[in-house]
Amino acid sequence: METQSATFHPIGFVENGLPFGTPGEVLRESESRIKLKTEYAPGLSELEKESRVLVVFFFHRSEDWALFQHPRGDQTRPKRGVFALRSPRRPNGIGVTEVELVSIVGDTLTVRGLDAVDGTPVLDLKPA
Amino acid sequence: METQSATFHPIGFVENGLPFGTPGEVLRESESRIKLKTEYAPGLSELEKESRVLVVFFFHRSEDWALFQHPRGDQTRPKRGVFALRSPRRPNGIGVTEVELVSIVGDTLTVRGLDAVDGTPVLDLKPA
Repeated sequence: METQSATFHPIGFVENGLPFGTPGEVLRESESRIKLKTEYAPGLSELEKESRVLVVFFFHRSEDWALFQHPRGDQTRPKRGVFALRSPRRPNGIGVTEVELVSIVGDTLTVRGLDAVDGTPVLDLKPA
Repeated sequence: METQSATFHPIGFVENGLPFGTPGEVLRESESRIKLKTEYAPGLSELEKESRVLVVFFFHRSEDWALFQHPRGDQTRPKRGVFALRSPRRPNGIGVTEVELVSIVGDTLTVRGLDAVDGTPVLDLKPA
């Protein structure tokens, strides 16, 4: 059990033209598209009835992690444990964000509120 | 990009004595412990200030998935796309549940509302 690991493959990718390093506030205020791989697109059926969607993604640009971190990297704030933060620098680089669903057209969702940069691999979508 | 995959390792495991096959309602009404591996326990610092925690876990007992499924397996309800469902039978078997934090003692959290069976590998914890 102790060595049990899990490997996941992207179901699609974020397209928003916003590069790595874009501030979180800017990302969250932007619309993003999530383009699914063709084979997964049918799985979107009925999701259009939801107004809020949970996007599970991979922090693919995060290269390290730390047990203690300053909130939002702000050195004036005391460090907290990584599990008390939403930082991308985590033991398992999984991001989970609840977004507003704007539209679904074919294999592409448009959402608002996603704090993920262009090219981010998306691992899952769920009704929020 | 198209082949980009991500491998994650458990930070800990669910302990609730409730075996695979326990109905979701029973799981959600029970208290569960999440015991972290010793090396990750310091990352819990300050999480005790939160009342709600997001638990990210691996549906390690789910062996297949389908694009279309009946909600909660109820054959009388029309099938929906997998991304419009919370079913464990997903392309990437990642569960995300917001739980009530009851207590944190050392390396062990006690939570209420977690729909995960005994032995489930936990991948991440975040403030909800």
